[in-house]
Amino acid sequence: MNYVQYPSIFYSIFEPIMAGNSFGQLFKLTTFGESHGPAIGGVIDGCPAGITLDLEAIQRELNRRKPGQSALVTQRKEPDEVVFYAGIFEGKTTGTPIGFAIHNTNQKSRDYAHIKDSYRPSHADKVYDDKYGFRDYRGGGRSSARETASRVVAGAIAKQFLKSIDIQAYVSAVGPIALTKDHSTLDFSLTETNPVRCPDPEKATEMEAYIRRIRKEGDTVGGVISCVIKNVPIGLGEPVFDKLHAELGKAMLSINAVKGFEYGSGFAGAQQKGSEHNDQFNADGTTKSNHSGGIQGGISNGMDIYFNVAFKPVATIMQSQTTLDNKGKMVEMQGKGRHDPCVVPRAVPIVEAMAALVLADLTLLNRGTRY
Amino acid sequence: MNYVQYPSIFYSIFEPIMAGNSFGQLFKLTTFGESHGPAIGGVIDGCPAGITLDLEAIQRELNRRKPGQSALVTQRKEPDEVVFYAGIFEGKTTGTPIGFAIHNTNQKSRDYAHIKDSYRPSHADKVYDDKYGFRDYRGGGRSSARETASRVVAGAIAKQFLKSIDIQAYVSAVGPIALTKDHSTLDFSLTETNPVRCPDPEKATEMEAYIRRIRKEGDTVGGVISCVIKNVPIGLGEPVFDKLHAELGKAMLSINAVKGFEYGSGFAGAQQKGSEHNDQFNADGTTKSNHSGGIQGGISNGMDIYFNVAFKPVATIMQSQTTLDNKGKMVEMQGKGRHDPCVVPRAVPIVEAMAALVLADLTLLNRGTRY
Amino acid sequence: MNYVQYPSIFYSIFEPIMAGNSFGQLFKLTTFGESHGPAIGGVIDGCPAGITLDLEAIQRELNRRKPGQSALVTQRKEPDEVVFYAGIFEGKTTGTPIGFAIHNTNQKSRDYAHIKDSYRPSHADKVYDDKYGFRDYRGGGRSSARETASRVVAGAIAKQFLKSIDIQAYVSAVGPIALTKDHSTLDFSLTETNPVRCPDPEKATEMEAYIRRIRKEGDTVGGVISCVIKNVPIGLGEPVFDKLHAELGKAMLSINAVKGFEYGSGFAGAQQKGSEHNDQFNADGTTKSNHSGGIQGGISNGMDIYFNVAFKPVATIMQSQTTLDNKGKMVEMQGKGRHDPCVVPRAVPIVEAMAALVLADLTLLNRGTRY
Amino acid sequence: MNYVQYPSIFYSIFEPIMAGNSFGQLFKLTTFGESHGPAIGGVIDGCPAGITLDLEAIQRELNRRKPGQSALVTQRKEPDEVVFYAGIFEGKTTGTPIGFAIHNTNQKSRDYAHIKDSYRPSHADKVYDDKYGFRDYRGGGRSSARETASRVVAGAIAKQFLKSIDIQAYVSAVGPIALTKDHSTLDFSLTETNPVRCPDPEKATEMEAYIRRIRKEGDTVGGVISCVIKNVPIGLGEPVFDKLHAELGKAMLSINAVKGFEYGSGFAGAQQKGSEHNDQFNADGTTKSNHSGGIQGGISNGMDIYFNVAFKPVATIMQSQTTLDNKGKMVEMQGKGRHDPCVVPRAVPIVEAMAALVLADLTLLNRGTRY
Repeated sequence: MNYVQYPSIFYSIFEPIMAGNSFGQLFKLTTFGESHGPAIGGVIDGCPAGITLDLEAIQRELNRRKPGQSALVTQRKEPDEVVFYAGIFEGKTTGTPIGFAIHNTNQKSRDYAHIKDSYRPSHADKVYDDKYGFRDYRGGGRSSARETASRVVAGAIAKQFLKSIDIQAYVSAVGPIALTKDHSTLDFSLTETNPVRCPDPEKATEMEAYIRRIRKEGDTVGGVISCVIKNVPIGLGEPVFDKLHAELGKAMLSINAVKGFEYGSGFAGAQQKGSEHNDQFNADGTTKSNHSGGIQGGISNGMDIYFNVAFKPVATIMQSQTTLDNKGKMVEMQGKGRHDPCVVPRAVPIVEAMAALVLADLTLLNRGTRY
Repeated sequence: MNYVQYPSIFYSIFEPIMAGNSFGQLFKLTTFGESHGPAIGGVIDGCPAGITLDLEAIQRELNRRKPGQSALVTQRKEPDEVVFYAGIFEGKTTGTPIGFAIHNTNQKSRDYAHIKDSYRPSHADKVYDDKYGFRDYRGGGRSSARETASRVVAGAIAKQFLKSIDIQAYVSAVGPIALTKDHSTLDFSLTETNPVRCPDPEKATEMEAYIRRIRKEGDTVGGVISCVIKNVPIGLGEPVFDKLHAELGKAMLSINAVKGFEYGSGFAGAQQKGSEHNDQFNADGTTKSNHSGGIQGGISNGMDIYFNVAFKPVATIMQSQTTLDNKGKMVEMQGKGRHDPCVVPRAVPIVEAMAALVLADLTLLNRGTRY
Repeated sequence: MNYVQYPSIFYSIFEPIMAGNSFGQLFKLTTFGESHGPAIGGVIDGCPAGITLDLEAIQRELNRRKPGQSALVTQRKEPDEVVFYAGIFEGKTTGTPIGFAIHNTNQKSRDYAHIKDSYRPSHADKVYDDKYGFRDYRGGGRSSARETASRVVAGAIAKQFLKSIDIQAYVSAVGPIALTKDHSTLDFSLTETNPVRCPDPEKATEMEAYIRRIRKEGDTVGGVISCVIKNVPIGLGEPVFDKLHAELGKAMLSINAVKGFEYGSGFAGAQQKGSEHNDQFNADGTTKSNHSGGIQGGISNGMDIYFNVAFKPVATIMQSQTTLDNKGKMVEMQGKGRHDPCVVPRAVPIVEAMAALVLADLTLLNRGTRY
Repeated sequence: MNYVQYPSIFYSIFEPIMAGNSFGQLFKLTTFGESHGPAIGGVIDGCPAGITLDLEAIQRELNRRKPGQSALVTQRKEPDEVVFYAGIFEGKTTGTPIGFAIHNTNQKSRDYAHIKDSYRPSHADKVYDDKYGFRDYRGGGRSSARETASRVVAGAIAKQFLKSIDIQAYVSAVGPIALTKDHSTLDFSLTETNPVRCPDPEKATEMEAYIRRIRKEGDTVGGVISCVIKNVPIGLGEPVFDKLHAELGKAMLSINAVKGFEYGSGFAGAQQKGSEHNDQFNADGTTKSNHSGGIQGGISNGMDIYFNVAFKPVATIMQSQTTLDNKGKMVEMQGKGRHDPCVVPRAVPIVEAMAALVLADLTLLNRGTRY
């Protein structure tokens, strides 16, 4: 066969596109925005009508994610104030799309020469140039984790829709320092009492000290966020391709810097025997153990859902690195700016937001549970 | 079976949602906004990277749709200026989502008492209350044709992507006054020379006079918009459910006030015999006649695409009508405000925009045409 | 920019695909099959659990569409028996996908030489070759209306889900012979009493005679199918892009040979004044007239939905035509085989099936209506 | 607000549906079928036209998954022969949907009394009853891993489309016995030389002995499958929600019994410092290390993709368990039938199939990569 793609009168169709800026099927978030463009924001399509929104609660979630909130995170100044353009009337959702924006107040001209023509190691700079032909290089453009602020807005609204479902994420490991307690023994009211967002105060102190040391070295470190979801009604999840845990997994893996996801017994469960791993029933339909992590065959069974999310260390380090430029030459690059030494404290509200979006969507897809 | 829908701990899932605020599969527009909210706008997801955008051309398309542009249309003042928040860098599309808004400058408090509690005949007021429980009643809220301004923005960008494809819509009938000439004999450079947007100057004059007379009567009138698309590459359209003409039909029927769609020979073709209607081939692959309207089996065949779109008369008339209020009582209602006596002149750019969105999406779905 | 599409190690991505073989968002039909392949069939995803299916009623719908059912239609022999592979257990739907097939019993080797290398006028032969590089030419392959048998199966199941919603399609015009009575005065119990499927017995006789005459001439003729839907709950339809009438329009325009769609007042409504066209309310929420066709702002208002669908004359005529072959030469082609002189009698169940699919899908998307 | 859901004339819309039986956006698989129904199968929509299919290679993939293939797996007899109904003509794909079925030859009446009314621990029996009201209990119905046979068929076709992309999955752990070698040092030609599908012959022998011992105990054990993908072009993946690794993660987590997914450095990477973890560039654009796992910012960078998938132990054990029945009583249940003591050997082709489906879909979404 001899295919030519298109007559020359036609605009080249072979320019690349970016798909995948929407999440969810019925409760659906579409985001837009580059790190240093005029604004980031999004549209929430499918939020039910008649929900009285607590706008301050939404802003509070954003504040948990924003830079400069503690000595442990980047000291950039971004107020991250959300404005709503549509979908809310007299304090309630109307059922129509909720349009919102977070305007960038911090757009002053900076020196981007070091990243304009060079590719930072373990960043998306080069693959963006490869795929799209050029990129908005200011602050990482679309590949910046700044995009996740829009997810936090939408997740905060999803939480208000989900009402009694209780979603609690927390930092369970920073580098080699990991929680050893089972999640059922943790007091989540302590999570927000320290800048690491770890509900075990002793471990939190250790983690904080570790992050401070790493930062002094001009280095960064990875970590793990765990999440526990209580009061989930039985029946959420579509049991073939869109299993509840498959949707949660995709949601978490779509967050910048995430390298792994496990739920329930997770990777440790792979080492167990069936006779150990099986969750035996109680007469009331609950189970004695919960290796299943609240999900059977992709469907919530009413027990607590819990999962872990692994984050790699931030790729921007304050050390000199030899790297590649866009002419194929090796160049020296020095980290600049104000970056997070460890991403997990600020990523806690993002994990909760993505979990809320998954549950809101599967709630709308669900149509009834027998009692 | 005995289903209860959800435990009472759970936010009622039976609050209604509004789906369907997105259009397109790969070149996808999502819109938000109510008539008198802070802003309307949208996100264009999937616009290819590297297109040098003519922003003034986009604003020009918006100006063709905006109120107050001539004596024939509503005299409301809405400047309809679009601002872009993302997806454009150094004058070119980056491939990332294009976020935009049109801020409402005209939000002054008005007297909506006459529509807040009463249902205007042949408007969506009552079904919105029925479906969503309440509504943003200001100026029709989400049901207002003001939403189509976002479509015009996206359509203008789609036109720039489609480049050489030439999309020409025009008014072909106003009430009983209809063009009789075949579209192939019309000079489309005349369309914008009169406020009716009819390329036949004599008919345009008649139509204009008719609209003025109707308006004096406090009445409104319907009309027809026709559209001709030239230079369409062979091969656009997915031949089962997403036929090119089915997508065009849905696109047009999604415009406020549209009652019908026909393409090629249309309803008249239903009266013909096969021996008359068949388009015989020329040796170069073109056809002698074009009853097919440029589409065979749902796929473009390279001939001109043409279609007609019927619009009902505007439902808001400046006459007193007896109607229903939300307590089930019959009340007297008097039309107020500044409304269009005939919607078709301002709807011409909307028809073009929706056609451009369909073609842009099917272009991205298409992967090759043999020559 | 200098894009190359892909490294040569990679299978050419520029081979074309066919998208759009699914219809619906939650109640979703995906079809497969070519006219003379081993089987056609499909998968219905999203059919609710617990519906006791009347399998004979499904087969009866298929029999209304099948060839050879009367002297007016093609005399091909295709028993069109559906077999179900999944999704039904102990007589009830399980909520899982319903997989089904209609095996082709009539696959005997035939002489396709006349269409293998030549392009029939006003058929999809040439655009398929243009778009896909080659085609299954046997009986039109995927472009054959045989695909619609799968739609009839799915539509018959949708009807059983929709229960009390009453969908009645009928032939309202054959060539120049058209019904003049308003649909509200017709007795639909007469539709199936004549081979034309026209509920006006006098007109049915005229139409039948006309079709017989046309067939004798070796010619074909177009027609119009009308459809009336009663007992539709208030609130179906998504009021922006996925308006109820936009979905109906797309559904109908996706049926082979359809050239136009209008609902309610349709194209005639474009000639009216607002003061005539507006549907005034009664105190019970119904309207005195129904120019709106049961739909306001894209949402059902509880009144009868009605619409018209225009079909072109069948392109295969029993006369000699000069046409193009795939070497670019003009050749003589003689119609062969057993074809319908007029497609509308057999298309009546297809129109009903597509209407049922639209309503089933919008029913699942709808989440509540206030009373 | 006072919502009632629907008038009583209407079929209850609150019957539940099962969504999510499709995978992929452009290269899309929809599956149907219950474990012991007449057939399982599916439709592949969007497979490019013109691919010469090796049907035997497809069957070979199915044979790698089928029961009874070795002494290590279930001894059930299911020949698992695929028949194709559409989408292939003269040995090549036509671009139209590929419909296929695997008929169940082993439908003889069995004694299901022990699972009809009782809920097996850590199986989906109870949540299916909860969500759908009843279930096809024969062999697990839709929740059975038998559904994955359809995925293997589609994945085998995706592999033929992807041509030079090389996807190699293998067993890297069975219970506590794990591979310690880096994937880059393994000889994948050895994977199929032992019934465990482990490319390290010594470990394979250990694993095999372990599985035999576990089976004798009437118990089961979990395991890990790893996968390495070579020759991936730069540019696959959509960098916000539909990141390449997020799609892979969802794909793997949608496979029955999967509990976790990690790619590149995975959970171990969360313990590292940025200075260790960053992948430094070589002058040719490759990287010195590959902690990124071939993916940067959600986009393939041309290096090898590798990931691990954790599987829980099979829940059906040949030991007596106390469990719940559907009347809320505790009952004794004895495992019956022929089940796998360890699922990972048969899951290797499923992991490869799902990986192939992800890559095929993202290949069609990708439109160009600069060189």
